[in-house]
Amino acid sequence: MNPSSPAPVTVAGRTLDHPDRERIRLDQVLQALADPLRLSVLRRLAAAGPGAELSCSDFDLPVSKSTSTHHFRVLREAGLIAQTYRGTAKMNALRGADLEQLFPGLLDAVLAAAARERAR
Amino acid sequence: MNPSSPAPVTVAGRTLDHPDRERIRLDQVLQALADPLRLSVLRRLAAAGPGAELSCSDFDLPVSKSTSTHHFRVLREAGLIAQTYRGTAKMNALRGADLEQLFPGLLDAVLAAAARERAR
Repeated sequence: MNPSSPAPVTVAGRTLDHPDRERIRLDQVLQALADPLRLSVLRRLAAAGPGAELSCSDFDLPVSKSTSTHHFRVLREAGLIAQTYRGTAKMNALRGADLEQLFPGLLDAVLAAAARERAR
Repeated sequence: MNPSSPAPVTVAGRTLDHPDRERIRLDQVLQALADPLRLSVLRRLAAAGPGAELSCSDFDLPVSKSTSTHHFRVLREAGLIAQTYRGTAKMNALRGADLEQLFPGLLDAVLAAAARERAR
């Protein structure tokens, strides 16, 4: 093994990749937001309050497990949520502070728009 | 011809379909916004001021004519822009008032986020 290689940070394949804040891209954020099911996940995380963590199974989404996993991955890879393993559960938290620092008001505006559309 | 059929509103194929305001959907709006080139079109229309119309060729986009036409169509079908023929030119205007009434603050937040990302 080349000693100059960075040490792998994965622990038994249980650590998930997240973009650093400065690598979060607006087009990927908007793409991730452009889906009613993913928006519903973000609405629940936002309603749960800053720093709140919910497990994937807490959401009870009306889709298969693999589809659900796909949607959470899209949200994580876009930089909208952080996913962490706690024992056998995968916990999800909104990256609200990162997003607010990058794009002030954007997430609030999208969540408010989603609420208005549901109320139509 | 069945006299009870609605009269076609298309004039020699030169009228373009637009969603009525109440049929504009958030997921389609976000999908349309999730592209740097389409965002650049909206930025220019917003900067041109309320009610301003620009022809497709005014934008000088770095893509082929057919790709450009596709992007404008995505924006129109999502309800973000109105397109009107004036002689041989296809003119584009932001549907700012419709969007503000449906989703207050959303377009401004996205345009501000785009400006911040460009300034990084």
